[in-house]
Amino acid sequence: MKTIRIGIIGAGRIGKIHADNLLRLPQTEIVAISDLFAGPELEAWAAARGIRHTTKQTNEIIANPDIDAVFICSSTDTHVPLIIQAAQAGKHIFCEKPVSMDIVQTAEAIEAVRQARVKLQIGFNRRFDHNFKRVRELVQNGTVGSPHIVKITSRDPNPPHPDYVKVSGGIFMDMMIHDFDMARFVTGSEVEEVFAQGGVLIDPVFADHGDVDTAIVTLRFSNGALGVIDNSRKAVYGYDQRVEVFGSKGSVAIHNDHPNTAEISTAEGIMRDKPMNFFLERYNDAYIEETQQFIESLLEDKPLAVEGNDGLQAEKIALAAKLSSQLNRPVKIGEIPELYNQTLELA
Amino acid sequence: MKTIRIGIIGAGRIGKIHADNLLRLPQTEIVAISDLFAGPELEAWAAARGIRHTTKQTNEIIANPDIDAVFICSSTDTHVPLIIQAAQAGKHIFCEKPVSMDIVQTAEAIEAVRQARVKLQIGFNRRFDHNFKRVRELVQNGTVGSPHIVKITSRDPNPPHPDYVKVSGGIFMDMMIHDFDMARFVTGSEVEEVFAQGGVLIDPVFADHGDVDTAIVTLRFSNGALGVIDNSRKAVYGYDQRVEVFGSKGSVAIHNDHPNTAEISTAEGIMRDKPMNFFLERYNDAYIEETQQFIESLLEDKPLAVEGNDGLQAEKIALAAKLSSQLNRPVKIGEIPELYNQTLELA
Amino acid sequence: MKTIRIGIIGAGRIGKIHADNLLRLPQTEIVAISDLFAGPELEAWAAARGIRHTTKQTNEIIANPDIDAVFICSSTDTHVPLIIQAAQAGKHIFCEKPVSMDIVQTAEAIEAVRQARVKLQIGFNRRFDHNFKRVRELVQNGTVGSPHIVKITSRDPNPPHPDYVKVSGGIFMDMMIHDFDMARFVTGSEVEEVFAQGGVLIDPVFADHGDVDTAIVTLRFSNGALGVIDNSRKAVYGYDQRVEVFGSKGSVAIHNDHPNTAEISTAEGIMRDKPMNFFLERYNDAYIEETQQFIESLLEDKPLAVEGNDGLQAEKIALAAKLSSQLNRPVKIGEIPELYNQTLELA
Amino acid sequence: MKTIRIGIIGAGRIGKIHADNLLRLPQTEIVAISDLFAGPELEAWAAARGIRHTTKQTNEIIANPDIDAVFICSSTDTHVPLIIQAAQAGKHIFCEKPVSMDIVQTAEAIEAVRQARVKLQIGFNRRFDHNFKRVRELVQNGTVGSPHIVKITSRDPNPPHPDYVKVSGGIFMDMMIHDFDMARFVTGSEVEEVFAQGGVLIDPVFADHGDVDTAIVTLRFSNGALGVIDNSRKAVYGYDQRVEVFGSKGSVAIHNDHPNTAEISTAEGIMRDKPMNFFLERYNDAYIEETQQFIESLLEDKPLAVEGNDGLQAEKIALAAKLSSQLNRPVKIGEIPELYNQTLELA
Repeated sequence: MKTIRIGIIGAGRIGKIHADNLLRLPQTEIVAISDLFAGPELEAWAAARGIRHTTKQTNEIIANPDIDAVFICSSTDTHVPLIIQAAQAGKHIFCEKPVSMDIVQTAEAIEAVRQARVKLQIGFNRRFDHNFKRVRELVQNGTVGSPHIVKITSRDPNPPHPDYVKVSGGIFMDMMIHDFDMARFVTGSEVEEVFAQGGVLIDPVFADHGDVDTAIVTLRFSNGALGVIDNSRKAVYGYDQRVEVFGSKGSVAIHNDHPNTAEISTAEGIMRDKPMNFFLERYNDAYIEETQQFIESLLEDKPLAVEGNDGLQAEKIALAAKLSSQLNRPVKIGEIPELYNQTLELA
Repeated sequence: MKTIRIGIIGAGRIGKIHADNLLRLPQTEIVAISDLFAGPELEAWAAARGIRHTTKQTNEIIANPDIDAVFICSSTDTHVPLIIQAAQAGKHIFCEKPVSMDIVQTAEAIEAVRQARVKLQIGFNRRFDHNFKRVRELVQNGTVGSPHIVKITSRDPNPPHPDYVKVSGGIFMDMMIHDFDMARFVTGSEVEEVFAQGGVLIDPVFADHGDVDTAIVTLRFSNGALGVIDNSRKAVYGYDQRVEVFGSKGSVAIHNDHPNTAEISTAEGIMRDKPMNFFLERYNDAYIEETQQFIESLLEDKPLAVEGNDGLQAEKIALAAKLSSQLNRPVKIGEIPELYNQTLELA
Repeated sequence: MKTIRIGIIGAGRIGKIHADNLLRLPQTEIVAISDLFAGPELEAWAAARGIRHTTKQTNEIIANPDIDAVFICSSTDTHVPLIIQAAQAGKHIFCEKPVSMDIVQTAEAIEAVRQARVKLQIGFNRRFDHNFKRVRELVQNGTVGSPHIVKITSRDPNPPHPDYVKVSGGIFMDMMIHDFDMARFVTGSEVEEVFAQGGVLIDPVFADHGDVDTAIVTLRFSNGALGVIDNSRKAVYGYDQRVEVFGSKGSVAIHNDHPNTAEISTAEGIMRDKPMNFFLERYNDAYIEETQQFIESLLEDKPLAVEGNDGLQAEKIALAAKLSSQLNRPVKIGEIPELYNQTLELA
Repeated sequence: MKTIRIGIIGAGRIGKIHADNLLRLPQTEIVAISDLFAGPELEAWAAARGIRHTTKQTNEIIANPDIDAVFICSSTDTHVPLIIQAAQAGKHIFCEKPVSMDIVQTAEAIEAVRQARVKLQIGFNRRFDHNFKRVRELVQNGTVGSPHIVKITSRDPNPPHPDYVKVSGGIFMDMMIHDFDMARFVTGSEVEEVFAQGGVLIDPVFADHGDVDTAIVTLRFSNGALGVIDNSRKAVYGYDQRVEVFGSKGSVAIHNDHPNTAEISTAEGIMRDKPMNFFLERYNDAYIEETQQFIESLLEDKPLAVEGNDGLQAEKIALAAKLSSQLNRPVKIGEIPELYNQTLELA
């Protein structure tokens, strides 16, 4: 029985989640885990899981001939160089989203992967969620007919820490990028044009960093469909994750997942508990499924469920949305290279 | 164009509702209304509606040759004599439920109606409700297959006034009688045996009058199906009216009607407004429909949607339930005549 | 007891509905009804309702001194002249939406009403709907906090007849105008800027008349909130009428009304019946309520629930949306006068 | 770090599930697994999980000094002797439900456990389910007030194999026993009297073995509350698992869990996917939680969530229900010993 030997780069929250999920898979072995802040704490954590090697040196992962695949879970700015190095070392790669904040660099990373003939899966975990998979299925099997209108709602229960706002890349690249991928995933169509509107309605800290906390983006797809995404950094009732695809033969709408189905009736009204709290809880099963499918793709040499190009396309749409918001006009994805250069010149 | 000329006996809450609903029907004219407490107030009320004649004398309604049909909305103890008189006077009759507290008298009233060849509709308003009609339809068109289990929930928002408890006839005859009729209506089958359990959990006043405020009754139908009805005199969240029919090919479950569809999400949870308040509001449209169908049956000489026998059968089941509760054993509907006589002897 | 004497202009579908709803109101009398095609059929219809006078001559309504208020239910192009004439004749006015296709003329009509000191209510019936009133209430009483995102979905079960497409004024003026009013109604805030995207995805007949059948419009409100409206001329599952307001303290979402609450479970899945069919059925109670409130405002000299200015504002937004769609850029409501003139010059 | 060393008796479906769930727990080690049909297949299965010892001999589990606790997952008739042996060998015990078909033997097993001062947890997995835990919580924290009415629905998607019907112990002992435990669990009150009605509506094979396939049982609780349970061996729409507790301050109702939240709207109606298929899928998380809590109770010497007495009480109620169904009269739990002896004499 073949085993995929894994090295994990980055032992933050998401790196540890992937590690725990990988440990459940029979044909997987975690060989080593690296982190800038590796030390006794990480060692203890690793030991409890039978992971023998911890290190501060990324290179000890990349250069290790006993490692078949790496999980890149370090900060976004390290993704591209690590992908290139890992690809050149012949490792398969799972990389968290976004690949980078810079579509030229993302494209370079993808090119390196292509040349090395390794596999690269991007961490768009929502593609593996029971609800959103069902939407895609109902579009693909024709139940809703040709998509006409796509609506995606994605609202976080709480804004990120102010320190993170500064380096997040902004709402479009940090948060809505998931929804751009979802739009492509559920429709099976490319986005051609976007128009973005944003506002600072929750916390002025977003304005301080040239960011917004509330945004609506409309999309025009290559198959003629229209779409709209709304994001908020703060929904007091909890994590709000919905999608609706309306088409010529019907529609499918996803409601939130709740921790239970209890309907509580009192003199005040009819109540149910708030949706599942946040992404780690809400997408717990999707995270498990995404690692599982990555490992299966390696074991059976099957196509990946999310490829490098999916990461690149979502980044392009995010960039277009950001520019649209700044220029207050619709931006075509096809304009991105040119606008991108202008933006660089202006900066 | 033929017109049905109506006399209303009893100008309480329900009599006035029927009057208002009749006024909306083009081929209907209300000729007179009688009430024990008729006076200037009723006269003003009638005048505002173009009803010319008000009286304290029931006989002025019964004997009036210009009246085709009477609505009997007076107290339950007057129903049987009024039905008999009206039938003998050749009037068609709409009578509120129950016909009487005494199945022998109810049977006599029905016999008088049969002999006079007039029509008698009983006020089982719920048969005309959009939800329950849909249940019956789905049973009759075979969607749920053969019924196996029927569940009926009926809970009032508040107990009746203590004075009423004394004369109500008890929970089975006063409140659950609607559900016994519903059980027959949705299944299209007769009840053969009942077992009733009751408790005084809300207010000791019920115990003072030999009554209960909470009850569960199981039913065995002639087609083999089983059923259960639960009643409570007080549901703090409002009027609770649900039915479920489970069968060999599926099930249909009715949820409550609400005043709006708003889903309100706050930091406390996900809330919706309480169900529609009580029967006058909840069954407003059903009351309109029941008068309309009665008038149509007269105009077009069509079979009635609820006949005298429906009233009698529901009363028999109510009586069986009451006896079952007292004897703490299942009671067959077939035992009723004998048990009924014993009860009379004991009393 | 004071009575409002009504004249109805236009005996098409909506004129007849208003007539029937007015007939239910005790302090209202319909004196006359006019229609271009008045004849024996209309006479019979009127006679059955006790309306004594029918005519082809609008002027017989306007000039009749026994009429206090007129309902203008004739074709859109007649609204402005009729409003002006009726106002000058001292009649109160109920006018169907839109007042006109031309904001300058609409403004003139409003000015005539102001000068005549009569009341003018616009037929935005959805403001009187149980669901949407509840949304407004929850915004106004602070339950959802400051509005951040407003989402309105409005989809018809079937496209209008091709002949109507030609004269409809286009999706923004004919259909989405209700949603523009709804956006103002639920938020209590003015729209400052719109961006509209449309597509012809259902039937090429829309393209033939320079119209679209599917549209998404984003809104920026003066209080900083963002909004989005989506319209489709054809939803196979029926009339789809939803609103969501998301704010700093929570959100309220309206789901569709259904003809019953039955949940039907079979081997195929869990099903419920389609939403209420179309606007006449879905907004039946709202139409009743809108006439009732209009009459009450006249009887008690109270402010109207929808005024002329509400009609004008919605038309301005509709025009801005139409221009945005043509220019493929966001359009500020403040730009309308200038753009409007340019458009006239170009035409 | 302390570790609980486990032996599993019975490697059927449920034994393997418990094994897999135990393997996920860090402080647990599965030492051996026994099965009547142990052989190469089981060896391979065990090897893949790092379980070194498989055997046909139950005694190799019971007598193994390296085993702290046993999971009894063999056929019901072996439970009592195995519990007694394991208890006498000083092992803690997890035993599947029912402990036995004979309440005297069950009581003996519990007594052996008591004398040996070991822990015995019964496999009432539903107590660990997210939905039902929430019901109990809302009763215990007073949200619903004093319970008045408890309603439990439990319907299987498909009847068991005819061979199983013969040895199942009947619907009350095999299937409804879960619901009897649920009734005690959610109310925190004991059942005092039951009345059971059953029918053979699905398959005559049940009649052949003196069993029924459809049943309704009403309950009277010691705190005065009333309850009703309905069971069916075949719900074509899938596994139906609902509970409702109605009390003086409100009610809580549990709806089914579904594989996704998709609402699919087509020309046919509004549809959602059927509930989760059957108990292994539906209660997957509950099975994990039940082993986890058992292990925690051992590690921390904490009270168990389900004890031997819970098994005994549920069996008593099941026996009372069976007798009630046969005698067609309500049966008090207090009558069981006497009725039980009569039954034995009759047999």
